Amino acid sequence: MNKKLVSVTLGIVALSVATIATAQMKPEDMIKFRQSGFTFMAWNMGKIKAQVVDGAVPYNQNQVAAAASAIAAVANSGIGTLFAPGTEQGTGWKATRVKPEFFSEPEEVRKLASDWVEQANKLAEVAAAGNQDAIKAQFGEVGKACKACHDKYRAEE
Amino acid sequence: MNKKLVSVTLGIVALSVATIATAQMKPEDMIKFRQSGFTFMAWNMGKIKAQVVDGAVPYNQNQVAAAASAIAAVANSGIGTLFAPGTEQGTGWKATRVKPEFFSEPEEVRKLASDWVEQANKLAEVAAAGNQDAIKAQFGEVGKACKACHDKYRAEE
Repeated sequence: MNKKLVSVTLGIVALSVATIATAQMKPEDMIKFRQSGFTFMAWNMGKIKAQVVDGAVPYNQNQVAAAASAIAAVANSGIGTLFAPGTEQGTGWKATRVKPEFFSEPEEVRKLASDWVEQANKLAEVAAAGNQDAIKAQFGEVGKACKACHDKYRAEE
Repeated sequence: MNKKLVSVTLGIVALSVATIATAQMKPEDMIKFRQSGFTFMAWNMGKIKAQVVDGAVPYNQNQVAAAASAIAAVANSGIGTLFAPGTEQGTGWKATRVKPEFFSEPEEVRKLASDWVEQANKLAEVAAAGNQDAIKAQFGEVGKACKACHDKYRAEE
């Protein structure tokens, strides 16, 4: 099994198995932790967008590579385990925006999540290599993977 | 320059240079992003503690390695740039707990931050290698590095 497949598989396992650790965690803490992970990721997405897509900030390979590593680290962290039963509603830093369908369509969620993990790992690879066109293209793929899940399973604010 | 030194140096550069990107960001967003990064890290610290220190959850090498990678990704993300002028006070997800001295003692902050980056990178290395005793010992070093900064520059809740 190659490295990418292992990562995707781990992502799926992480998503589908709520660990004992999360079982012992309060629902509001799980919501807070997942909101923190996604918000930390959003900051790192913003850095790559500014440097590689918009050109609003000069390109710095080390910063972009670090940002892409951070995005991949969130994707590979098993953040899916924080969507455990009991967290369908509730407030972490703010009220969760997850839709009820997220919890009733596990196969579709798993498919979207594994695509996200795969695209994020590819972004970390191309960001480390440093070709800006390749980074821009792969950044778009990560964005699509995020949006695919948001469109289906995240309520508007 | 070896890999560790590069990482530490990058961490220092990231900490000391507020990028244009953060200059354009609202103070409350900078505070929210840094709180998210530290909270996401705390979740990952908790996973390693549960599996390797407390034994409350069975050890899973892939999960511990992923958690350590996430901690290192936060340390290497340039999170120090989010402590820009204008963020000495204010509210992100909640009121910031940073003390005023953080902004008037940059040399000491840089020293503590570079130690944190170094210890977090070492933890990612030993977690990938999988020796639980080594992980436990290095987890303690990361905890000390966190605490050194908290004791000096974070107000009690």
